[in-house]
Amino acid sequence: MLVYGRNVAKEVLQKPEKVRKVTLQKDFNDKEINSLLEKNKIKVEYLDKKGFSKFDKYSHQGIILDIEDFSYTDYKEFLDVDDAKVVILDHLEDPHNLGAVIRTCEAAGITGIIIPKDRSVDVNSTVMKTSAGALENVKIAKVTNLVNVIGTLKENGFWIVGTEMNGSIDYRDIDYTGKIALVIGNEGNGISKSVLEECDYLARIPMYGKINSLNASVAAGIMIYEVISLDK
Amino acid sequence: MLVYGRNVAKEVLQKPEKVRKVTLQKDFNDKEINSLLEKNKIKVEYLDKKGFSKFDKYSHQGIILDIEDFSYTDYKEFLDVDDAKVVILDHLEDPHNLGAVIRTCEAAGITGIIIPKDRSVDVNSTVMKTSAGALENVKIAKVTNLVNVIGTLKENGFWIVGTEMNGSIDYRDIDYTGKIALVIGNEGNGISKSVLEECDYLARIPMYGKINSLNASVAAGIMIYEVISLDK
Repeated sequence: MLVYGRNVAKEVLQKPEKVRKVTLQKDFNDKEINSLLEKNKIKVEYLDKKGFSKFDKYSHQGIILDIEDFSYTDYKEFLDVDDAKVVILDHLEDPHNLGAVIRTCEAAGITGIIIPKDRSVDVNSTVMKTSAGALENVKIAKVTNLVNVIGTLKENGFWIVGTEMNGSIDYRDIDYTGKIALVIGNEGNGISKSVLEECDYLARIPMYGKINSLNASVAAGIMIYEVISLDK
Repeated sequence: MLVYGRNVAKEVLQKPEKVRKVTLQKDFNDKEINSLLEKNKIKVEYLDKKGFSKFDKYSHQGIILDIEDFSYTDYKEFLDVDDAKVVILDHLEDPHNLGAVIRTCEAAGITGIIIPKDRSVDVNSTVMKTSAGALENVKIAKVTNLVNVIGTLKENGFWIVGTEMNGSIDYRDIDYTGKIALVIGNEGNGISKSVLEECDYLARIPMYGKINSLNASVAAGIMIYEVISLDK
């Protein structure tokens, strides 16, 4: 996987064994990064400005790193965790949203995240950048069939809580003790029909405006912090 | 102000009196937009693909609209509102964050938003796009000096609540009745020192991870929904 830019570089170079190769623009100059590259004896190639131009859309700041792909977790790892709190992202599309949700899950101490294999944003360079270091500390499982996985979660004692604009219950009125899987839907279309049917609760975040739509990562943040607020 | 793209165009064309001019790429074709332009007799100019290329970074989808600048509110309008809930953004930089906060404020029925004039993101095309229509229904005041304005808020009975990683009080333990101004800090540096000193409470969102940083718009969302959750 290719990742770009100085901030990501500084983060990634903390685990130099994951870096395969680094490409620098000829005039690249960053003391901290240069010293990390030297100290860890990382293979560096140089390209001129013209060679770099095809990567301009990634705001590379003169540095591209080829790193090991993100290693996903098997969702079965989540099944036996006491009071597990799992977040299921039902076909989220925007990498900035995925990055922001990963940060929230890390901060909230969520057990793990489940994303579907198809028609969903993947852990890519933008996600890595947006997640601001949190990616390393969050378990993410990628699954073929969300509905089947939700079935398995239920068999293992999970309650499934979907977040829906017209949900039947206020999100603050749900008892989040025990094992909970929170489902966040797609930015435009919400939770898919087949997944909705599997939810034990459809939680509504009350809204008082005319437009009444929350950014997906904001809605996820509000829900996640309610789910983990058990001790209050 | 120039704004770009089909979704924004459809939204903006609901208030055609605000549209000064529309520029279309020669092969532009969107039935709904074309009919809105025709119905409202809006002045249209055409440019070829080459002429459009300098706007490519805005993902314009072949349409650029020149519209009236956003009209800001005088913050003094917020002073006398019963139980006013105001959100102060202390030098937020990312337009996506501002857009997401605007959506949250609209949905939560926040009285108004206050942003500083300098070193802060402004209401631009990206903000308009990210706020997904909410901009029209939210009052935003732009002020020269945040500290002075906070002083005036206090004189008018507001309690000032800052959100700080190391805040002294759990955000759920604050009494948000009455007039509240919630301060959200800059993405990288948090709330500025002079503003921190004016806060009556520094609220902490508890975190349980290693990285422990929330996206600014997510932190704002969690706080805003706690502030308005009085009736629960």
